[in-house]
Amino acid sequence: MSGNAIGERFHLLTFGESHGKCIGAVLDGCPAGLPLSEEDVQPELDLRKPGQSIVTTQRMEEDRVEIMSGVFNGHTTGAPIMMMIRNADKDSKSYEAIRDTPRPGHADLVASIKYGGFNDHRGGGRFSGRITASFVMGGAVAKKLLRQAFGLEVIAYSLELGGVRAEGFTVEEAAKNRYSNEVRAPTPKAADEMKKKIVETRGKGNSLGGIVECVALNVPVGLGEPVFASLDSDLARIALSIPAVKGVEFGSGFSSTRMTGLENNDEYFFDGKKIVTRTNNSGGILGGLSNGMPLVFRVAFKPASSIASKQKTVSLKSGKEADLVVPGRHDPTVVPRAVPVVESVTALVLADHALRAGLMPQVLGKRG
Amino acid sequence: MSGNAIGERFHLLTFGESHGKCIGAVLDGCPAGLPLSEEDVQPELDLRKPGQSIVTTQRMEEDRVEIMSGVFNGHTTGAPIMMMIRNADKDSKSYEAIRDTPRPGHADLVASIKYGGFNDHRGGGRFSGRITASFVMGGAVAKKLLRQAFGLEVIAYSLELGGVRAEGFTVEEAAKNRYSNEVRAPTPKAADEMKKKIVETRGKGNSLGGIVECVALNVPVGLGEPVFASLDSDLARIALSIPAVKGVEFGSGFSSTRMTGLENNDEYFFDGKKIVTRTNNSGGILGGLSNGMPLVFRVAFKPASSIASKQKTVSLKSGKEADLVVPGRHDPTVVPRAVPVVESVTALVLADHALRAGLMPQVLGKRG
Amino acid sequence: MSGNAIGERFHLLTFGESHGKCIGAVLDGCPAGLPLSEEDVQPELDLRKPGQSIVTTQRMEEDRVEIMSGVFNGHTTGAPIMMMIRNADKDSKSYEAIRDTPRPGHADLVASIKYGGFNDHRGGGRFSGRITASFVMGGAVAKKLLRQAFGLEVIAYSLELGGVRAEGFTVEEAAKNRYSNEVRAPTPKAADEMKKKIVETRGKGNSLGGIVECVALNVPVGLGEPVFASLDSDLARIALSIPAVKGVEFGSGFSSTRMTGLENNDEYFFDGKKIVTRTNNSGGILGGLSNGMPLVFRVAFKPASSIASKQKTVSLKSGKEADLVVPGRHDPTVVPRAVPVVESVTALVLADHALRAGLMPQVLGKRG
Amino acid sequence: MSGNAIGERFHLLTFGESHGKCIGAVLDGCPAGLPLSEEDVQPELDLRKPGQSIVTTQRMEEDRVEIMSGVFNGHTTGAPIMMMIRNADKDSKSYEAIRDTPRPGHADLVASIKYGGFNDHRGGGRFSGRITASFVMGGAVAKKLLRQAFGLEVIAYSLELGGVRAEGFTVEEAAKNRYSNEVRAPTPKAADEMKKKIVETRGKGNSLGGIVECVALNVPVGLGEPVFASLDSDLARIALSIPAVKGVEFGSGFSSTRMTGLENNDEYFFDGKKIVTRTNNSGGILGGLSNGMPLVFRVAFKPASSIASKQKTVSLKSGKEADLVVPGRHDPTVVPRAVPVVESVTALVLADHALRAGLMPQVLGKRG
Repeated sequence: MSGNAIGERFHLLTFGESHGKCIGAVLDGCPAGLPLSEEDVQPELDLRKPGQSIVTTQRMEEDRVEIMSGVFNGHTTGAPIMMMIRNADKDSKSYEAIRDTPRPGHADLVASIKYGGFNDHRGGGRFSGRITASFVMGGAVAKKLLRQAFGLEVIAYSLELGGVRAEGFTVEEAAKNRYSNEVRAPTPKAADEMKKKIVETRGKGNSLGGIVECVALNVPVGLGEPVFASLDSDLARIALSIPAVKGVEFGSGFSSTRMTGLENNDEYFFDGKKIVTRTNNSGGILGGLSNGMPLVFRVAFKPASSIASKQKTVSLKSGKEADLVVPGRHDPTVVPRAVPVVESVTALVLADHALRAGLMPQVLGKRG
Repeated sequence: MSGNAIGERFHLLTFGESHGKCIGAVLDGCPAGLPLSEEDVQPELDLRKPGQSIVTTQRMEEDRVEIMSGVFNGHTTGAPIMMMIRNADKDSKSYEAIRDTPRPGHADLVASIKYGGFNDHRGGGRFSGRITASFVMGGAVAKKLLRQAFGLEVIAYSLELGGVRAEGFTVEEAAKNRYSNEVRAPTPKAADEMKKKIVETRGKGNSLGGIVECVALNVPVGLGEPVFASLDSDLARIALSIPAVKGVEFGSGFSSTRMTGLENNDEYFFDGKKIVTRTNNSGGILGGLSNGMPLVFRVAFKPASSIASKQKTVSLKSGKEADLVVPGRHDPTVVPRAVPVVESVTALVLADHALRAGLMPQVLGKRG
Repeated sequence: MSGNAIGERFHLLTFGESHGKCIGAVLDGCPAGLPLSEEDVQPELDLRKPGQSIVTTQRMEEDRVEIMSGVFNGHTTGAPIMMMIRNADKDSKSYEAIRDTPRPGHADLVASIKYGGFNDHRGGGRFSGRITASFVMGGAVAKKLLRQAFGLEVIAYSLELGGVRAEGFTVEEAAKNRYSNEVRAPTPKAADEMKKKIVETRGKGNSLGGIVECVALNVPVGLGEPVFASLDSDLARIALSIPAVKGVEFGSGFSSTRMTGLENNDEYFFDGKKIVTRTNNSGGILGGLSNGMPLVFRVAFKPASSIASKQKTVSLKSGKEADLVVPGRHDPTVVPRAVPVVESVTALVLADHALRAGLMPQVLGKRG
Repeated sequence: MSGNAIGERFHLLTFGESHGKCIGAVLDGCPAGLPLSEEDVQPELDLRKPGQSIVTTQRMEEDRVEIMSGVFNGHTTGAPIMMMIRNADKDSKSYEAIRDTPRPGHADLVASIKYGGFNDHRGGGRFSGRITASFVMGGAVAKKLLRQAFGLEVIAYSLELGGVRAEGFTVEEAAKNRYSNEVRAPTPKAADEMKKKIVETRGKGNSLGGIVECVALNVPVGLGEPVFASLDSDLARIALSIPAVKGVEFGSGFSSTRMTGLENNDEYFFDGKKIVTRTNNSGGILGGLSNGMPLVFRVAFKPASSIASKQKTVSLKSGKEADLVVPGRHDPTVVPRAVPVVESVTALVLADHALRAGLMPQVLGKRG
């Protein structure tokens, strides 16, 4: 259907541009009867909003969400839920340059070709990382729904940033630590090192990439619709929809390619009456279906493309090569702000598949 | 819509089970007027069929395709094209065991839970790698269409297998070499080493994984529909739909996470009148859109799950732990046979997006 | 997605041409565990197959259905169910004429323009009424599913044919009578008169139209997804997909346009503890949702286009006007054979919406 | 996907409730480069807004549209276009009664059952005719696009209202007259009689229904995707999505059921070099495809359900029968305000199919 939409039964259509009037989304398919207000969505948006610390862009946005439809008397009604935030701190002047000299690593040039030059180029327009705010709006509802239905929790964190890799932590520790440090690291030690690396790199007018790891606990067994809407297919699809993502892997992922079958297969045993696996190389997905073990996957983010250093590009007007120093305010790395986004897209896919599998009712509770 | 279908305008719905009557697909949306016969599809199927060499399963299948609709007078008509192969060499007896003792690394257990025990378990049923034959049927048509429309070529090969990585080759060499050796390696040297590794591992009742790299040349600029149907989103989705895939990466992929923006950004320059990039860390995709550079992505395959060695599992009947030696005939690695599958799914996505972008006519030529 | 497919959760993709190798369909989304064999589908196909009596075409087809996938041990597996019939009694020679002189009232000319002359014109190809056999294949499964889940029954009949309107009957009588006469009339009296009219008209080389009325009993309350997938929206869509249909109306339909609100509104009252309406002008649908009253709608079929009388058309070769006597074997009216088709499409839509509403489980029963 | 959305390539997702904050829609898939502003949409909204005359409800709404995304420098960008109007003149108090005593002919009761009582019942909520404002927002863009691309014009009018049928007019006269009278009749004479009938009926606390006829001129040949997305299928679907619609017919429609094939078939002849038909009983659609003749169809509207007269209903609280006088401000007939709505939905379907057929470019013109 629409390339800007995702989800069959829990359906999110996103809209808005970086420097337009607003960013928003319409969520359709949420069961009726879920208690919902702006208070459920705002904290999630706050986790990704810009201007929070030295490790993010200095653009200041309140990102104050307003629910415009689909909620009545404090509960979802079963009708489409429109949510939006206004863009406030727009500084579009600095983007005039990039119309002529496209930024390396950005969509500027190709978007201009695809849309005949009519695309809103300001701040990257529809190709800005800012559009992920709409993913978070939908994700906040999905998270609440999944928590209520299954006690399901989605926990992402910066596993690696600029080559600094967090190690020696449990999921519980990651859950506790990740939002208490600016870089969203799972341990205080990694947080310190990552932050130091970011500050140092930003000072050089350069940027960093990293890996976000995401774990979901209490995922029901059997989510996914093989073959093309398998759980990993849909998670991979949505992960690659986040700007700056260049790869995704599940469980032992790329490292499994150097293991043998004996090493990689997860053997079954009984944990009481429950059948579980000794290892979790599958990352909780077998045959495209959730198997009840923790869902584990990793998302690779390239270093942020917008950097203060001088780069070579071309001038479309002159037809000659040109130097470019990307103007505007930028993130030295997108990884910390991407952490809540990865959580949100994971929740969106899980909520959709829980509904597709008939594991969530169309109506939650009964109004008196 | 259907989890067994993919593609909005070039739409493939797959059906069939490993040990059922047939494997097949219905392809809808192919423009009218494409010359098409079984002769176009059979060679592609032959590249993935089993029993070809020591590196694959010994199941013998002719995999003879029959086009049942949608073609008239040697051309596509614009109507749905149904294609199918009959299953011949089925040996289902050996699969009775796995109903009670699910195979580690397989969908046996989770499929049984999801479908209440009604799933066809024989040979993995709908979860068998054999279903990728239907991907290849559709892919064969997509390849022909893309070649005719754009001179577009899709070239995949076994980049790495069991830790042996092919090196020092050009795309042209890979294109020439890949199907002239049993392991689908891009160089004769890698082919020899990979084959040796496979034979050795098979002898030990074990299996191997690896990485398939895929390159597409002459991809038109601007394919992809951001944000959720971006080109990399759709390629990642379909790649993860291939059984045994655990990861996917584009361009510099996971290695980009350790690069800086300056290192990873691909600078533009003029190659005559054409704007190209000096490097191709983007893998030919920026902002979810093809940028005219070669499309490059890699798919990680875990080691084949079915192995002759003894493994621990559980007995569903006895409720106790049990030993399992997986019966049946198996591939010691799925990588070589996956190479034409990766090409096919890539072609399916590119054909779909070329139609979505309006770059291919609804009718090819004019009937006299 | 595919124009040849319908249904979001109970999804039917159809294929095949009138004079090609086969007619068939893939049904995806049927819950696992439904007992199913060819014996469930064949009787429904027999009701619409040609050559049965003087009121239908003399083309003789066995229309013997084969289930090719998705069924194992006598039950559905949750995987796609492919069903097909072979075309046997093809007489394509007589169709050469219509390539040059398009038949009035048929798709010949417009299909040739749309598909650049590549369409299979034989017997109307993809535009033949014969493709409705694939609707019946899916409908047979839907009917069985709905009967089992809700005791839901779908009953269609020829309400009017060639101006002869059946009157004075109950739904129960219609259910009992409709398939015991060749014209599918709800009363023996109407059956006699309709048949007489058909024989007389056929003798004159002419054809007749009529109205099929369809009633569904025991429809659960709340089926339909407003606004564009409301129950009447989806029924109207699928009704108009049946060749020769020119209109559809629900409940009091077109006659409601001459009533006042007071006359047309259905007042509520308690029937025991159940809230029902005194009249059923709504036809069982309010606000696009089933309301628990009998679903009632009518489908208008134009007179069959293929007639033995001479008609004016044009010659594409000569560029001049030409006379045409349509060759081949034809139905003097499509109404009788359309009756099981209308039942089938109704069942397809109801099954889809019952699944969408979460009113049917993904798995029926439990395999021992 | 979403039941609140329609269109595959020209995709409209609607949101909002009668007495909520707003009514709106997101339009995705509109080609880039179309000149667009609020000035293009507002006049269409003005044609359906309430409070305009004695023949409509006295609710006063400005219905001032705001375009929130997808437009930049006065042109569409190819990104989703969000449009909305604020609800101003809400008077929700009067709707408390209907929570207990559901209105006959309305969705009150069934919606409450489907959504567990969580639905927004005020003013009918999501089931109000007010939501058609969002159809008109999308339709306004579709109309502009179709006019620019093909010179295509969509002309609807009140053919019949309360039994008064307009007669003896040409399409040109209808086009000229329809919006110059309050009832949207194609002739001044019919307008006078219809208005008189409405005023008289309103005075009696009663309401009227009627038939809207819609004609589209200059429709390209070959629009429609058989079999389930044929042009008449999609038009029927969207017509039935308009509240109060109970039927739809194309060309000779229901009256064709009493004609013979010889009478109903439209014979071809050459009009210069163009092949046209002498009659237009097909209503411009053959085999589900537009045939180049004027598209003609009719939509049946039941009499408005909300009336001032006393009606019988039930009290959900007391479990007893009850009397109801529907409170609030209502239209004595929905027909006049439905005329621009029918035009809009027709344009939405035609624009979608023109894009699907590849007859409209993805980018209109080239930005300097």
